[in-house]
Parts: sequence; structure tokens; C-alpha cells
Amino acid sequence: MAFSYEDVKQAYERIEGLVCKTPLEESFYLGDGTRRYFFKLESFQKVKSFKIRGALNKMLSLSQQEKDRGAATISSGNHGCSVSYAAALLGIQNTKVIVPQTAPKSKVDRIRYFGAEVMQLGRDYDEAHALGMAYIEEHGLTYIDPYYDDPKIYGGQGTIAIEILEQNPDIDTIVVPIGGGGLITGIAVAAKAIKPDIRIVGVQTEACPAMIRSYADGVFYEEYPTTGETVCDALVGGVGKLSYELLKDYADDLIAVKEETIRRAVRHMIMEEKFVVEGASATTVAAVMENRERIGGKNIALVMSGGNIDGQLIAQLLQ
Amino acid sequence: MAFSYEDVKQAYERIEGLVCKTPLEESFYLGDGTRRYFFKLESFQKVKSFKIRGALNKMLSLSQQEKDRGAATISSGNHGCSVSYAAALLGIQNTKVIVPQTAPKSKVDRIRYFGAEVMQLGRDYDEAHALGMAYIEEHGLTYIDPYYDDPKIYGGQGTIAIEILEQNPDIDTIVVPIGGGGLITGIAVAAKAIKPDIRIVGVQTEACPAMIRSYADGVFYEEYPTTGETVCDALVGGVGKLSYELLKDYADDLIAVKEETIRRAVRHMIMEEKFVVEGASATTVAAVMENRERIGGKNIALVMSGGNIDGQLIAQLLQ
Repeated sequence: MAFSYEDVKQAYERIEGLVCKTPLEESFYLGDGTRRYFFKLESFQKVKSFKIRGALNKMLSLSQQEKDRGAATISSGNHGCSVSYAAALLGIQNTKVIVPQTAPKSKVDRIRYFGAEVMQLGRDYDEAHALGMAYIEEHGLTYIDPYYDDPKIYGGQGTIAIEILEQNPDIDTIVVPIGGGGLITGIAVAAKAIKPDIRIVGVQTEACPAMIRSYADGVFYEEYPTTGETVCDALVGGVGKLSYELLKDYADDLIAVKEETIRRAVRHMIMEEKFVVEGASATTVAAVMENRERIGGKNIALVMSGGNIDGQLIAQLLQ
Repeated sequence: MAFSYEDVKQAYERIEGLVCKTPLEESFYLGDGTRRYFFKLESFQKVKSFKIRGALNKMLSLSQQEKDRGAATISSGNHGCSVSYAAALLGIQNTKVIVPQTAPKSKVDRIRYFGAEVMQLGRDYDEAHALGMAYIEEHGLTYIDPYYDDPKIYGGQGTIAIEILEQNPDIDTIVVPIGGGGLITGIAVAAKAIKPDIRIVGVQTEACPAMIRSYADGVFYEEYPTTGETVCDALVGGVGKLSYELLKDYADDLIAVKEETIRRAVRHMIMEEKFVVEGASATTVAAVMENRERIGGKNIALVMSGGNIDGQLIAQLLQ
């Protein structure tokens, strides 16, 4: 197999001390007599996203020659910020984060803030990707893949499972948002190696249920369209190859939730639980709201993948 | 002296492992070319408030006989929740948290949630206090004082200074909200023992500047009225005796900030920095907004004392 618990254990040792061991905090409000819910707060992680785990693990694994040549990725979101942060932390000088020319200034500023150089290429993400990959190849940079098939990335994300089960060995169910699938696949492979009977439940927004449709249709949807509006920027697009291959054996259930419920869940998290989380994270809370019985479990961890939500969106959701 | 760094060091050892070492996170937005600001996020502490530090330190110090008789406090806020949480954690069975009959149901529920028994006595806080103290004395319970003069309480709150200076030894200024004064006094005594030239700046809301007026008038204001509306529930009322005695030697500056700026600061914290903090915490951010030069420093820690802000207030502030 291309990816195993061994990759996660190695990642755990490699990134220890460079990432936060984020809190696992019990919800005040979601529990009932028989079920307790715990938030794994990657929204408090460095760069406010789990993505730093994979990016750091990858970039710590580069050879000196690769470091000297430099690294690059194509992302205006949490992965781009994470690569920028990791490059600055590790002193990998020639690191480029490539984004479309249309990327919002706030996102570009944020990536620059962490230290890397931002290159604006192409009119949209597809063009940025095509031009970016050509640039990366031409200049001999190491491409830092966000979720496609790099075991170093999957391994970094999986370290969350080790922390959860250290923090509370009674956790019997982990609920994880799915975008490309790197997060849930890393977590599932590690968690089931540590505790084979643990249940892993993946959640997608109904606006872009790429993984669910991939399995339903038997098609690897490397790209997938978004239907209607979504508050889950981090979850749009297709699925990763490695996650598509593995998740059928590692996920116990995949659930799609309504955008309306996700919005209610973000509001709940901020107004009641007092945690600012992004839409992607709130899908797991929405899943509990819509499908408590189906998710099951007695001690359930909900992975809050990140805290980068637009301030204007917060204000709008709270009205 | 009734209180010294020795009390804080003992508290640090006593409560270690039972409280969170909360993050010290740099602000994305407040810094400029010459100054960096760091949030000490007690809003992520157990019970979402620094108050757990003092309560735990006190309750861990009780004799077996005192534990058997039980403990009590009079508070519907963070201190009441902290005593409830500490009692459950330490198995101190007969613990009462006394609140007025008019205390909102949400607050009463929250205290009960943590495990202690809530007693509703009297029509307002003054009556609750009078009746509560009589009850406590009659039943031989140990009174857990929120901020008046107990070195165990001040010692617990002061552990925050040890953490800040471990997490970033370059911190040269600590900005702390003042209600009764236990938090700032604990922090100031510890911080100046560790790093004598550190600056300690206290902040109060203009709606209730009890400590500032106490020194200006040369009067120990054990009670102090609130003028107009405030979003800082945790900061209303008079000052503690021990803090009144010590702070004149330990605080380098005391600043009052406008309620309007505090509201803007809460908004900034949620919408930009993505941290839910209560009004009291946001006073320190408001102080930076109003008085950046006067606060001074190069590496400034802003103590976010708690995260218990009413959900409806959040929605209102974000409109």
C-alpha cells in the first residue's frame, strides 16, 4: 500500500514541537444523556488550519538539494498559507505560492504575511494550475501537493488521530469533513491502526459531494462542480487519488449535509460554543444536527479543520 | 507582605496538568513595524476563564477536614463556574455556588453543568452576599473568595505570568483587564519577580473605573457603581483589598477605555483575529486602539481573560 500508519508515526515525530497539540474540548450543548461530543480544535492550529501538519511534514522531508532549489504550491487557501509558513519556519528560501490573478487581496496578503513569495498566474484556478505546474517544472522546484497522493501530506494530516486518541482513549467515533480527502484518509488509517473498531464518518456539503458521488458512480472525480452557494470554500473541487483508493475501506459512513444546516452550525459554534470555525469544520456539527443516530457512538470527536472564515461572512451568518 | 512570587510558584506546581497552558498567539492585525502584540488566550482555558486557576489552587490547598465539610462561593459568573468545576474535579462533595434569585437561567444552568449545587438566595447580589455569607458560616463551609485578599486566589491567577514569559521571554509589556484586581496583581507580582523591568499596564472600562478612582481619590472602593451600559460584566463592582494595597507599586500605568472602543475591539477579535472573547478581555485590545504609544513596548502580551460572552451580544455587536 502507498500509505500506512507508519507514514503517520514518522510524521508525528517529525513535526512534534512545530505544530500545536490542539485542544480536544467537550461541547457544552451537543451532548445528551448517552452521547458526548468533543471538538478537535485545529481552528487553533498554527495558520488556523490542519494543513500545516502535512505541509511541514513534507517540507521537513526534503533533501538539502531540494531545499536549495526551493518549493512551490498552487493554492490561495489554507494550504498556500501553510506552505508559506513552513517555508519561513524552515528557512526554505525560494518558495513560491502560486495563485490566480483573481485571488482576493486579503488572501494574497495573508500568504505573504507568513513569508513566502506569491506569484499571480492565470485568470482562474485552472489556468493558475496549468501555468503554475509548468513554472514549477521549468525551475526544478518541489511541488507541495495539497491532497492528491503524497503520503507525506496524508501522514501529516493523520497525526490528528494520534492526538485525539491520546487525549481521550474513549473516543469511539471520529467525524471529519471531506474536501480532497487527505484529512479523513490520514486520520482513518492512523485511528484504525491504533483502535481497529473505531468508526470514521466523513461529511461533505451537499453543494459539492464529490467523494460520495465518486463511490456512488464508481468514477474517480478528480474535478467536481459546485452547485449553488456554499460557505465551505475549503471543501469545493474534486477528490484526491489516494483518498479515493483508500477511503472505501476506511470510512464507515459518508454523509452529505445541507448548506442551511452548515450555516446554522457555524452560528452555533460562534454564539454558543464560542469557537470561530470555518464552514468546512461546521459540516461535522451540521451532521450531528441532521443525523445524530446515524453517526452513533458514545464519545464522538468532531474535527474542526480550520478557523479561517471571512469576517463579513461571520457577520452575515449571525444576523 | 501578604502575597509574593512564592505563592505563585507554589500555585504553578499545584495546578499544573489540571489547567491548560493556554496559547500565546501573535495578532495578525495589531502589530506594526516596531511593535508585536500577542494574545494570551485564557478564553481557551478550562471553563473559558482564568478564574479556574485561582479556584483550583485554593481548593487543592484545603485540608481533608475542610474538604469533608465542603466549600462555597457567591458568584453567578466565571468564578462560580470555576468553583463548580474545581469541586467536581477534586471530588469536594458538599460545594454550593450561591447566586441571587434573579440570576439568568443560562448562568445557573452553566454552573450546575460543571457539577456543583446552585443555591438561589436574595433578590440581588447584595442580598445574596449577605444571606450567603451567613449560610456559609452557619454550615462551616470554606468560602472561596473571588478576589478580595486570598493569596491562594491571587497566586493561581499569577501563574499566567510564568507561562507568558516561558512562551516568549521577549515580552516586555503585559496589558491586563482589571475588575477586582486579582488577575493583574497576581500577574504583576510574578512577572516583576521574573523580569524586573517588565511593564504592567492595567485597563478598566470607563463604565466602572474603580481601581483608577480608588488611587485618584485615595479611597479603597470596595464597592463602585457602574455608569451607563457596559459589555464587560466581569469588570463591574469594587476592587479587592490585596490588589488595592499592592497595585500602586506593581502597575506601571492604569488606563480607562471607552465602551464604544471595547465593542469595536470585540468585533475585531471575532471578525478579524477569529477569537471569541468576552468584553473584559477586549478592553486590552481597546487600550491598544486608543493608546498605542502610551502602552509602549516592543513585544506586548494582551491578556484575554475569558471567552464567556453572551451569544445574543455577539450577534448584536457584529451587526
